[in-house]
Amino acid sequence: MAGSSFGNIFKITTWGESHGKALGVVIDGVPAGLKLSEKDIQPFMDRRAPGKSNISTPRNEADEAEILSGTMEGITTGCPISIMVRNTSQHSSDYSNIKDIYRPGHADYTYDAKYGIRDYRGGGRSSGRETIGRVAAGAVASKILKELNIDVCSYTLSIGPVSIDRSNFDRSLITCLPTCMPDSKADKEAVEYINGLREDKDSAGGVIETVIKGMPAGIGDPVFEKLSANLSKAIMSIGAVKAVEFGDGFKVAGSTGSENNDAFRMSGDEITKITNHSGGLLGGMSDGSDIIIRCYIKPTPSIFKTQETVSKDKEDVSINIKGRHDPVIVPRAVVVVESMCAITLVDALMTNMSSKLGSLTDFYLK
Amino acid sequence: MAGSSFGNIFKITTWGESHGKALGVVIDGVPAGLKLSEKDIQPFMDRRAPGKSNISTPRNEADEAEILSGTMEGITTGCPISIMVRNTSQHSSDYSNIKDIYRPGHADYTYDAKYGIRDYRGGGRSSGRETIGRVAAGAVASKILKELNIDVCSYTLSIGPVSIDRSNFDRSLITCLPTCMPDSKADKEAVEYINGLREDKDSAGGVIETVIKGMPAGIGDPVFEKLSANLSKAIMSIGAVKAVEFGDGFKVAGSTGSENNDAFRMSGDEITKITNHSGGLLGGMSDGSDIIIRCYIKPTPSIFKTQETVSKDKEDVSINIKGRHDPVIVPRAVVVVESMCAITLVDALMTNMSSKLGSLTDFYLK
Amino acid sequence: MAGSSFGNIFKITTWGESHGKALGVVIDGVPAGLKLSEKDIQPFMDRRAPGKSNISTPRNEADEAEILSGTMEGITTGCPISIMVRNTSQHSSDYSNIKDIYRPGHADYTYDAKYGIRDYRGGGRSSGRETIGRVAAGAVASKILKELNIDVCSYTLSIGPVSIDRSNFDRSLITCLPTCMPDSKADKEAVEYINGLREDKDSAGGVIETVIKGMPAGIGDPVFEKLSANLSKAIMSIGAVKAVEFGDGFKVAGSTGSENNDAFRMSGDEITKITNHSGGLLGGMSDGSDIIIRCYIKPTPSIFKTQETVSKDKEDVSINIKGRHDPVIVPRAVVVVESMCAITLVDALMTNMSSKLGSLTDFYLK
Amino acid sequence: MAGSSFGNIFKITTWGESHGKALGVVIDGVPAGLKLSEKDIQPFMDRRAPGKSNISTPRNEADEAEILSGTMEGITTGCPISIMVRNTSQHSSDYSNIKDIYRPGHADYTYDAKYGIRDYRGGGRSSGRETIGRVAAGAVASKILKELNIDVCSYTLSIGPVSIDRSNFDRSLITCLPTCMPDSKADKEAVEYINGLREDKDSAGGVIETVIKGMPAGIGDPVFEKLSANLSKAIMSIGAVKAVEFGDGFKVAGSTGSENNDAFRMSGDEITKITNHSGGLLGGMSDGSDIIIRCYIKPTPSIFKTQETVSKDKEDVSINIKGRHDPVIVPRAVVVVESMCAITLVDALMTNMSSKLGSLTDFYLK
Repeated sequence: MAGSSFGNIFKITTWGESHGKALGVVIDGVPAGLKLSEKDIQPFMDRRAPGKSNISTPRNEADEAEILSGTMEGITTGCPISIMVRNTSQHSSDYSNIKDIYRPGHADYTYDAKYGIRDYRGGGRSSGRETIGRVAAGAVASKILKELNIDVCSYTLSIGPVSIDRSNFDRSLITCLPTCMPDSKADKEAVEYINGLREDKDSAGGVIETVIKGMPAGIGDPVFEKLSANLSKAIMSIGAVKAVEFGDGFKVAGSTGSENNDAFRMSGDEITKITNHSGGLLGGMSDGSDIIIRCYIKPTPSIFKTQETVSKDKEDVSINIKGRHDPVIVPRAVVVVESMCAITLVDALMTNMSSKLGSLTDFYLK
Repeated sequence: MAGSSFGNIFKITTWGESHGKALGVVIDGVPAGLKLSEKDIQPFMDRRAPGKSNISTPRNEADEAEILSGTMEGITTGCPISIMVRNTSQHSSDYSNIKDIYRPGHADYTYDAKYGIRDYRGGGRSSGRETIGRVAAGAVASKILKELNIDVCSYTLSIGPVSIDRSNFDRSLITCLPTCMPDSKADKEAVEYINGLREDKDSAGGVIETVIKGMPAGIGDPVFEKLSANLSKAIMSIGAVKAVEFGDGFKVAGSTGSENNDAFRMSGDEITKITNHSGGLLGGMSDGSDIIIRCYIKPTPSIFKTQETVSKDKEDVSINIKGRHDPVIVPRAVVVVESMCAITLVDALMTNMSSKLGSLTDFYLK
Repeated sequence: MAGSSFGNIFKITTWGESHGKALGVVIDGVPAGLKLSEKDIQPFMDRRAPGKSNISTPRNEADEAEILSGTMEGITTGCPISIMVRNTSQHSSDYSNIKDIYRPGHADYTYDAKYGIRDYRGGGRSSGRETIGRVAAGAVASKILKELNIDVCSYTLSIGPVSIDRSNFDRSLITCLPTCMPDSKADKEAVEYINGLREDKDSAGGVIETVIKGMPAGIGDPVFEKLSANLSKAIMSIGAVKAVEFGDGFKVAGSTGSENNDAFRMSGDEITKITNHSGGLLGGMSDGSDIIIRCYIKPTPSIFKTQETVSKDKEDVSINIKGRHDPVIVPRAVVVVESMCAITLVDALMTNMSSKLGSLTDFYLK
Repeated sequence: MAGSSFGNIFKITTWGESHGKALGVVIDGVPAGLKLSEKDIQPFMDRRAPGKSNISTPRNEADEAEILSGTMEGITTGCPISIMVRNTSQHSSDYSNIKDIYRPGHADYTYDAKYGIRDYRGGGRSSGRETIGRVAAGAVASKILKELNIDVCSYTLSIGPVSIDRSNFDRSLITCLPTCMPDSKADKEAVEYINGLREDKDSAGGVIETVIKGMPAGIGDPVFEKLSANLSKAIMSIGAVKAVEFGDGFKVAGSTGSENNDAFRMSGDEITKITNHSGGLLGGMSDGSDIIIRCYIKPTPSIFKTQETVSKDKEDVSINIKGRHDPVIVPRAVVVVESMCAITLVDALMTNMSSKLGSLTDFYLK
């Protein structure tokens, strides 16, 4: 089935495989009148690009985004925006030895089970390169959110056992440090941890936290298009994410109502909450406070240790993975998570516009 | 926006509020030829009904499901199945004192922010009664899964600090014990814990676990209609769920690739996995092993302690909630989670049928 | 597949069969704040009800609409509106003789081919009664359009060879005359024509015209959600419609560019067109002039002449249809066409609200 | 709103404007295992390309289709197929004089009304070049249909007053003659007619007929996803189409039930119909006989006569259109209509696969 589109009236459709000719996205429903050029897209592409540090794959992918449609003289026209990145640094030969073998922890077996064929070159569509389209679309969504004074910020909260110290939080570090942590001390420790694992031919996982500021209250559509539900889907659709939580998240199960309820209080003319256990979401809609999301990323399944597995021909075999793989994908996934959140928010903000009859009459009878 | 539908080609549309005339669901895309009557629906309704034990609300809602369309002589015809439950035990007057006050932890404020109006009677659409339609549809989806030898089993894993002991696991207890735990010892402890909280005018949260057995490999549609993504959305759309995880879930963040990867091994002619850290999902598709999901439910926000909040008129006020509320909603949510999983699985199984050209030619040229 | 829903963010889901317990609709995405009660729905139901004249079936169906959800104190809350009509005058026994025979011109054979089972009682889901849900939703959509000063008016343009004389056009007659023509002279001739056919055990077809006034320019979403495309789908989804045209319609094929182009001219500060060959649609979007649609309805397939056909068991047989059938369905279809147009317009007006970045910033930063 | 996608589980998303960098389509839901290369796409592109005869625009657009994703070693993998055509022969300067003027019969005014900005270069997204993506997708859909022995054939039925003589029908002529008529005598007359109009600086319209052979009975999903409804939408979404009809189409309005009903008769073991007034559709589903569709295309609005119109600045002005325009677009639209039909059929065939419980159990328990 067609599963490559996401969103209702702001909709993205991604395409492309790791070792195909190109990858990209069609972003449909972008409002007309937004200034947009490749200069807006490229910084997002660069944040997900590998080769920036020694904890990332040494593959050097330029990943230059080209806008093919939907703008005129640097302004969006309301028509679908097609963005493409050509593949340039693909070594298909790296994968010839695993052509008929299912790598543990990868989607090789499930793709074969579903389609009876599998693009074995670099994982094909299940590769992390699939996120190129998401990130390009995220750059566009983020630009729209900026016009609405809404800010989405994702960063690495932890890698393996190393977590940031919130008292050190420095947002400017996120896009500078190899781990995308907002804390240089934790970053250093995490790099050491990863280097240790790499020597062991092993890999690490971690946690990405996202904080969304400035969302008006009441965004999200009950009961299945709740903002919480769509953010979960958006994030869980990213490869390697195994858990998602909002606000106090997992901890709520052990809490009590009196601890977990956030009291409302007026702050001037504004309705505010004294605490934010809910993570900015009540009844699945934004409640005006910061939306707080954490997702849990599994360790890179491509490790260089010998592993036990089976072949397509149903024989037990050993496998030694080659190629150029990230010992941890968390830092490169940060911008992917941020992008999927931004895309989800823009769609929800748009569908919200017709919630009240008064909004329709204001719009059409003004 | 229309947010009351879920699913692609097996699609449910729920409607109804806590204190309206009735609640229900339209289930569209049900295959023709399924034996179906109210007798199949009612056991699911009874599992979510309150009043069964002293840890649940004393409201006594019969919740009798009536099938209004889509069957002839006890067989589905392929036409949409409409199921309705009349409201009978509603006391709107219980809510008159909170008409203009936002209850902490509830969706009162966000509904008002979105719609400029709020059905204050029992929470309106944000009430747990909204799940009646989901559960009726879940009964139908479960019956289809049974025909395909697929089994979905949800149960309470923990309430507050009390977790089940897996060595005591007895499935037959789930639908008998007040906590819906599969372990009578834990059940007793949990009931005591809840009774203690109730005396304190407080409430508890907990964890629901779901195990799905018998799913063929390869179900789910990359990249946004992954089974993992849609299950997350399905579950996170249930009120009070704040976190979702698959398999090892949030623990993966601290694991390593060599620990977390599941080795494949042949077992006779079957491809199997030696471990199941992945929770039955690789690349977002089913991998043939058990699918394991846990979701984390917050404590009931309706507590009888005095709480601080604000009024619709933007004044700081105190609130004392009255009415008949569950001190913990986890046991009643078990069948809701199971239902949402079943609905998601049926849709994914259906959309999978056209994944291979050979399936199309087999179907149409046989 | 789920085929019972229509619309994107204003979405209807209909359910029910001719001889089931009830029929109805869930209308999702209705904006909050609309005054709405059964009094708004019933006049639409009455327009499609049979038994009003001797050119319609003598079945007497009260078709009382009950609103089950989505309003509080007579105001919509933004939650889905469920409307139900109980079946009361169904004679299933009328159909026992055609249980295993395919009526010519009906959907009996195609339903059996698709589902392997068919609700033979009154045509089941393919009955004209299926339109009850559409009309109830049309009443709601029309009420929203009225708030926006948009007027949708459908009427019978012709029955068999009898057409209205446009110089006699009197809108007030549409809901009074048995043919739903806006011309009493043509109405009389058409009634005579139908009575003649009835004596011959035969039936008639006709044309329904719809004129939409007050649509702002620019509504409809290129390229597949054009207003023209969605109106076509909406109308062609009504049973018995075999052709749809806009403006000059079929005649454009024989016209020339210089004849068919509508010149623009200023009229005060308004951009207007001197002619309206386009029928109010350019590039599939509304152009600010009247939208003009005609659809062509086939003669009722249920005739009382003996006909040749086949049985389910694949034998050639003769068939004599009994029961109470309209000798022409055009008059009763008028309100169905009007309803489907109204539903389509509301959805398009809503999705249009996010077309410009300026609309988003006006909405959220005001 | 996102309006650039069409289809449910076989879904296309088109992008691109007349004078942008490129145009294309993402085809999602293509089953794995189909042999596919550019050689399958190019013949469809060539059929819609201009410059093939003197009744078409002298623009010479190579329109070379490049497959960017979704295949491996010439076989589809189940992943989305992205196809792109680079623009090469665009003369934006041709349009500078109409930058601020609304061309009669074009979408200039409606695009401006909707988006507040308009890509004036060659009509932007409302250009006939938008159909490039549809035709590329149509080539893929047609290849799938061929595997299922389903044949879709579109051709020019008439241009202005010149219709084909059905007794001369020769399918092999369709792709050879400049008019795409299956009758060389009518073709010659039509060419003369067009040449006469061209001398008058005028343009012609016409009719395209489509015949679909081999569709199994029961395809299409009641009640809104009827095959008839979706084919109407598919075809009416093509620019310049103003009317669509099935089978006897608009003539049914003047027919009677006894004339219009098609009698069923057994032909060997097959259920067949003696006549085909229904055009192969009963209850909106395929009835096993040929599906017959006609659509009516308006004359090219770009004519070289001086026309009256208004400017963006709301002034009455005269306009003289320059550039290279087709005096009739019917021949080039033939392959677009055929493509949209093929796409609609594939989607309907796929969604039909889960209509019966028995199909699900056959598929999963075999």
